[in-house]
Amino acid sequence: MPTIYALSETMIMSETIKVTVWNEGIHETRVDTIREIYPEGIHGAIAKALRTEPDIETRTATLADTEHGLTEDVLQNTDVLTWWGHIAHADVDDAIVARVRRRILSGMGLIVLHSSHFSKIFKSMMGTNCSLRWRDASEKERLWNLEPGHPITQGIGDFFELPQVEMYGERFDIPTPDKLIFVSWFEGGEVFRSGCCWERGNGRIFYFRPGHETYPIYYNADVIRVLVNAIRWACPQINASTEDCLNPGPLENIIK
Amino acid sequence: MPTIYALSETMIMSETIKVTVWNEGIHETRVDTIREIYPEGIHGAIAKALRTEPDIETRTATLADTEHGLTEDVLQNTDVLTWWGHIAHADVDDAIVARVRRRILSGMGLIVLHSSHFSKIFKSMMGTNCSLRWRDASEKERLWNLEPGHPITQGIGDFFELPQVEMYGERFDIPTPDKLIFVSWFEGGEVFRSGCCWERGNGRIFYFRPGHETYPIYYNADVIRVLVNAIRWACPQINASTEDCLNPGPLENIIK
Amino acid sequence: MPTIYALSETMIMSETIKVTVWNEGIHETRVDTIREIYPEGIHGAIAKALRTEPDIETRTATLADTEHGLTEDVLQNTDVLTWWGHIAHADVDDAIVARVRRRILSGMGLIVLHSSHFSKIFKSMMGTNCSLRWRDASEKERLWNLEPGHPITQGIGDFFELPQVEMYGERFDIPTPDKLIFVSWFEGGEVFRSGCCWERGNGRIFYFRPGHETYPIYYNADVIRVLVNAIRWACPQINASTEDCLNPGPLENIIK
Amino acid sequence: MPTIYALSETMIMSETIKVTVWNEGIHETRVDTIREIYPEGIHGAIAKALRTEPDIETRTATLADTEHGLTEDVLQNTDVLTWWGHIAHADVDDAIVARVRRRILSGMGLIVLHSSHFSKIFKSMMGTNCSLRWRDASEKERLWNLEPGHPITQGIGDFFELPQVEMYGERFDIPTPDKLIFVSWFEGGEVFRSGCCWERGNGRIFYFRPGHETYPIYYNADVIRVLVNAIRWACPQINASTEDCLNPGPLENIIK
Repeated sequence: MPTIYALSETMIMSETIKVTVWNEGIHETRVDTIREIYPEGIHGAIAKALRTEPDIETRTATLADTEHGLTEDVLQNTDVLTWWGHIAHADVDDAIVARVRRRILSGMGLIVLHSSHFSKIFKSMMGTNCSLRWRDASEKERLWNLEPGHPITQGIGDFFELPQVEMYGERFDIPTPDKLIFVSWFEGGEVFRSGCCWERGNGRIFYFRPGHETYPIYYNADVIRVLVNAIRWACPQINASTEDCLNPGPLENIIK
Repeated sequence: MPTIYALSETMIMSETIKVTVWNEGIHETRVDTIREIYPEGIHGAIAKALRTEPDIETRTATLADTEHGLTEDVLQNTDVLTWWGHIAHADVDDAIVARVRRRILSGMGLIVLHSSHFSKIFKSMMGTNCSLRWRDASEKERLWNLEPGHPITQGIGDFFELPQVEMYGERFDIPTPDKLIFVSWFEGGEVFRSGCCWERGNGRIFYFRPGHETYPIYYNADVIRVLVNAIRWACPQINASTEDCLNPGPLENIIK
Repeated sequence: MPTIYALSETMIMSETIKVTVWNEGIHETRVDTIREIYPEGIHGAIAKALRTEPDIETRTATLADTEHGLTEDVLQNTDVLTWWGHIAHADVDDAIVARVRRRILSGMGLIVLHSSHFSKIFKSMMGTNCSLRWRDASEKERLWNLEPGHPITQGIGDFFELPQVEMYGERFDIPTPDKLIFVSWFEGGEVFRSGCCWERGNGRIFYFRPGHETYPIYYNADVIRVLVNAIRWACPQINASTEDCLNPGPLENIIK
Repeated sequence: MPTIYALSETMIMSETIKVTVWNEGIHETRVDTIREIYPEGIHGAIAKALRTEPDIETRTATLADTEHGLTEDVLQNTDVLTWWGHIAHADVDDAIVARVRRRILSGMGLIVLHSSHFSKIFKSMMGTNCSLRWRDASEKERLWNLEPGHPITQGIGDFFELPQVEMYGERFDIPTPDKLIFVSWFEGGEVFRSGCCWERGNGRIFYFRPGHETYPIYYNADVIRVLVNAIRWACPQINASTEDCLNPGPLENIIK
């Protein structure tokens, strides 16, 4: 679907949604069994899946890149940023986090994946601790679709299943989502708000739970379907800063 | 109203709501005309009003105090913190902001007043820029009551008026409030979401617009009524951290 | 906790929360095994539990009573109405439903229990179909506490369990709750939004899932704890109609 | 923009959004001054504006038509229904209202215009009284844009003005909107939530305030722009009933 959107001052027409797939990219270089699952990295697997979509133009970036691959120029040319991090949240530069945050509030979409619940960027957008229960016991997860009419769930039925996952359970310390899309059932007895939408500034944020590095989650067709839908949903209407306070004169007479 | 609440581990019974009234306290010391309005500081005026309520126990703290008057001990003994800042937001120590944030997420209520929309603590709790339009032209404001059944509006009619105020106008860059309580009409032609509730972690937050330093707003009976109602509404049920991720075993058998 | 609240014109002070426990009351009279569980009816069991709370004054009403026991006088003297129905939703008089609806919008709290998701009053307050998945297979339910800081969950831990229940599963066709309190995990593989808050007019509504007639759910201490908490939460601040449109003159000069 | 959407059983691809513009159509036939403003009726004026949009296919229907022009067949072939009523709300057949309500919950979008706040269909979707303050004094209205990043406000600046309108003021007795888009400032001193989004069942609802019969509001370019944007926003993803409760077997073993 071609995208038409407007900057506050200038009009932009784009044929494609520009996606930057970000990954801390550490597990894959250090652990053989993980590299076997994701030989091109988690970012490589996600990017490959997205490249089959004709309306999505994908690049990747990782922690090891200069400025983590997230220069001002890259961000200005990104409609939607997907984020995967786990063991190196603390290594992400605060100045880059602040830059990403500014860009989201100006309109860029953000898709937060799995263990990125504890990333600096997600915590700073939410204002909460984003803590949760967790357990890695290769258990079954079933994600229930609470919003069959929402753009993010198109092509998904009543639920979909993942045979072996790391468990995340409630209470997830997040602000009440603007829209709750998926709730997970876990074999071990927990539940979790696995798909959550928020709107912040001019930008849209989607948290999507699936994705541990030791399971081939990002090859699952339902997971990719949701990811693609979420990218289209998060694609911005405008690119306009919300940082400044205007100080205009009155629009009506003021009687002193 | 006596307050009964529970810590997660220990039970606490308190006869009173413990309020800390925080003020940057700079305008009043530097500008004669402002000191004339608030000879004991904005914090002094608010605290004096709160002290007429038998169920509220009030202390004050300012930027100039050691650790801004917000030590760990003070915060642990604070049910609700009210915050007024304006020209010295940048001078508030980041470590103190982080400490206040932790305490809010553990349950402490936060009342954010007027120009504190741009305080570090409010911006960090909201995740947005909290920008707005503004104009200081001594104009009339009328605050409309959108939630007559809500605890914060008890004793307030359909609206109340302030004859001379600084104007704040939309768009106010905040997350959609969990509950929108007041919308202001301004003589000069703008509107504003002047009373907004959010829940974050275990804590409650209320933004309340009235209160510029050059007008005697904190002597207005309706403003004080709302403030007292908001303090009672924001009084916590529990004091429990949401920082840690638990890693429990399964509650049900997992079939491998 | 004594209750102090205000009518828009007259002030009322009440020492107690007045609760009317409504039950269609049919299963218990027709089926021996159900009567054995609830010999005084579901309403009798709930009322007995509430009567141990010193701040709650309880009466009961059933479908068989004149005007279903819900006369204008009873409703005007009810702060919170609890509702249990199942096989006789269609037998509830539309005029009584309209009367209850008016009273809720004026401030009365409503607690909707279990199969009352399909009651006329709940569907008319929600505006949706309130459909869901269901199965009666005596399975285990675990209700997860998503809001440990909320008044409704005080005294409840991370979760509580019911050993044998009828299952309700998503998608539950309801408006996004103003606050989602409990999510259930079911042994058979489903999840459900089991505790949901809404505010409508001047009134508060809580849907609470537990309670099938063939299980002794209303003798469970956690269920009763939540019910009592919800009654206190739903107790109104005011009793004021929202039916009429006022037609006032202007508050400011209009320039023609 | 071509629209691609899916029925739960069958896939549908449509080049256009099918809109039905409904009007009670009484003022225009009875009052000369109103007929002069809307010689083809309010529905005629709206339909004419929509017909300039290549992706929108428009038909009209009125109270006087058989089944008010809203047969099952018409509704099944309507993506978005716009509704204008005022003095004849009571004359709309309850069975037709129920039919429209079913279709909205299955996915059809609903745009509720001006005095239709008191229509049967809007009240039944909201569950509240939908009352408000009003005054017809030819005053100025300024609609402030609270969500510059939302699809409904594209092409609209910080605000837009209408020189002469009937006033609607708060408190508007509605459920908290899922998203609040516009707040109006009125010359006479009131404010109003003039653009509100809700999601119900599989359908989307937008209330838009402008539009009294005695002013040429539906020729205003900003009003039409918002209306067109809202129609695109409300266009359904699916057409699927939410009326029935499924009774499936368990997905996991239940241990008795």
